[in-house]
Amino acid sequence: MKKLLNDPADLVAESLRGVERAHPELRVDHEHRIVYRADAPVSGKVGLLSGGGSGHEPAHAGFVGPGMLDAVCAGEVFTSPVPDQMAEATKNIDGGAGVLHLVWNYTGDVMNFDMAAELAGAETDTEVAAVVINDDVAVEDSLFTAGRRGTGAAVPVEKITGAAAEQGRSLSELADLARRVNDNTRSMGMALTSCTVPAKGTPTFDLPEDEIEIGIGIHGEPGRRRVPLAPAREIAEMLMEPLLADLDFTGGDGVLVFVNSMGATPMLELHLMYAEIAAILDNAGVVPVRSLVGPYVTSLDMAGCSVTLTRFDDELLRLWDAPVAALGLRWGM
Amino acid sequence: MKKLLNDPADLVAESLRGVERAHPELRVDHEHRIVYRADAPVSGKVGLLSGGGSGHEPAHAGFVGPGMLDAVCAGEVFTSPVPDQMAEATKNIDGGAGVLHLVWNYTGDVMNFDMAAELAGAETDTEVAAVVINDDVAVEDSLFTAGRRGTGAAVPVEKITGAAAEQGRSLSELADLARRVNDNTRSMGMALTSCTVPAKGTPTFDLPEDEIEIGIGIHGEPGRRRVPLAPAREIAEMLMEPLLADLDFTGGDGVLVFVNSMGATPMLELHLMYAEIAAILDNAGVVPVRSLVGPYVTSLDMAGCSVTLTRFDDELLRLWDAPVAALGLRWGM
Repeated sequence: MKKLLNDPADLVAESLRGVERAHPELRVDHEHRIVYRADAPVSGKVGLLSGGGSGHEPAHAGFVGPGMLDAVCAGEVFTSPVPDQMAEATKNIDGGAGVLHLVWNYTGDVMNFDMAAELAGAETDTEVAAVVINDDVAVEDSLFTAGRRGTGAAVPVEKITGAAAEQGRSLSELADLARRVNDNTRSMGMALTSCTVPAKGTPTFDLPEDEIEIGIGIHGEPGRRRVPLAPAREIAEMLMEPLLADLDFTGGDGVLVFVNSMGATPMLELHLMYAEIAAILDNAGVVPVRSLVGPYVTSLDMAGCSVTLTRFDDELLRLWDAPVAALGLRWGM
Repeated sequence: MKKLLNDPADLVAESLRGVERAHPELRVDHEHRIVYRADAPVSGKVGLLSGGGSGHEPAHAGFVGPGMLDAVCAGEVFTSPVPDQMAEATKNIDGGAGVLHLVWNYTGDVMNFDMAAELAGAETDTEVAAVVINDDVAVEDSLFTAGRRGTGAAVPVEKITGAAAEQGRSLSELADLARRVNDNTRSMGMALTSCTVPAKGTPTFDLPEDEIEIGIGIHGEPGRRRVPLAPAREIAEMLMEPLLADLDFTGGDGVLVFVNSMGATPMLELHLMYAEIAAILDNAGVVPVRSLVGPYVTSLDMAGCSVTLTRFDDELLRLWDAPVAALGLRWGM
């Protein structure tokens, strides 16, 4: 295993020290492994909390900041944070209007956020609501998940809900909005190579030099099927066919097309994939109105990509365009 | 070779189609492989042109936009664009105040930009100046370079000069400014793994599983030395020692600390490296005032990182902070 680290056991803690040093607009609680926007809690605003296992950077800390999340909890690599962390963060981002948990659908995360809501409610009287993100059409139930996995949808869900929270909307309104974004979003990913979890030191799965995995999970969970390595054009078809079959993306105010690197796949290839995907959308009568291309929800050093489509209405588009200043997503400020 | 592409011969052209589709704020001339900001030429403003071989994404197209470059020329992977491309771009971004070429120091690029300036001057009367970026302290002369290679300094040089160009400064003022940024910037990189050039299909060099290369070039050119794989803390020392020995970064208005991924190294590891580098700077009495952490000047799928330090004065800091809206660098707009 060749990685830039000291002791694998210290990787997450040491990386959080770098996040703190590089980004003074964030505040890091090292004991609880929580990354806050420096001005949290924002008085009168609903606090937005997410988080999960590390190894998906810039998710999750990269989405903390004005216009997006108030805090995230960091677990070990590919491991849910614990309820104590989440309860601590919940209490600290409550500006008096309650806290919304945006939970990626993995069994451990869902259970722990649920316990954290109870803990926070018992200790203070913070009102908590939760929305589960479950956009991955690849499989129902998986290694760590009941139902569909939460993947790329986290970016539009957290971005759009964050913009609405800045407007002063109520907890229940924001929960409805987050559900609406999630319901209008679908994702599908693929791997060219496995990732290597530092604590283990060897690839999570074996993928022969001439095979790829379609429908891969962001922890290397099994996908739909393995197929021979194919041209990008065919891979794009394999990703888009199940996406477009799962939800009608025509009409409305167009779609957000989010082409994500699993980590090791460079922008040169991602933009080529974007062109292939745009051509498929043209043929399907789906209109891309916004794009996002890059590494946003990664799986350590896995090579591969995922596609996430969000069906916009006028309001979702406006909230997507609102200013955001997170280290992983920034415009307008 | 496992990559997301169709025919390797079409990779750059097809990727530029994706750039065009995903980013309507850019205009792509596919015949000449030039990426323009959509509103170029900007009347009365000096036009800024850069470019080089593909495979370093988001460099170069990712630095085109308001507050940064007016256009870039894309070559084949790791291959200089040709003078005709550069001359065409030069003519088309001249808003009447001349054009500044920001040239990464590789022999082919320097020669071709030089010829392009002559061509453009002969055909129209566009006034052209050129500044060569040569920040890499690793080696004097290399596989493709006389003198020092141009690497990470391109980001602060192009950003800061771009901000000053928006203010309406003259061609000679901007050339002086670009030289000043370059003169105050040093870089040093390292590789954990080789990259694989798609047209070749096999790794550019062999690096055993237990060795790393210190001082690597962004095309895989040889560095200073190969050493056994070491903890991040020691690798940070190996990068910082020659940087700090080459220029006095103490005093002034602090430094920009730019920790760059060579492509396949994820943010989790980069932030850990940032923490190690910040600790070394603390000990050396150098004050980090701005940071940039991520993949900006990559080498396809190479794993590894580079560190770039820029010594700020008050003016450089202010211009660094000015708004920029490129796909690879964006804040304030």
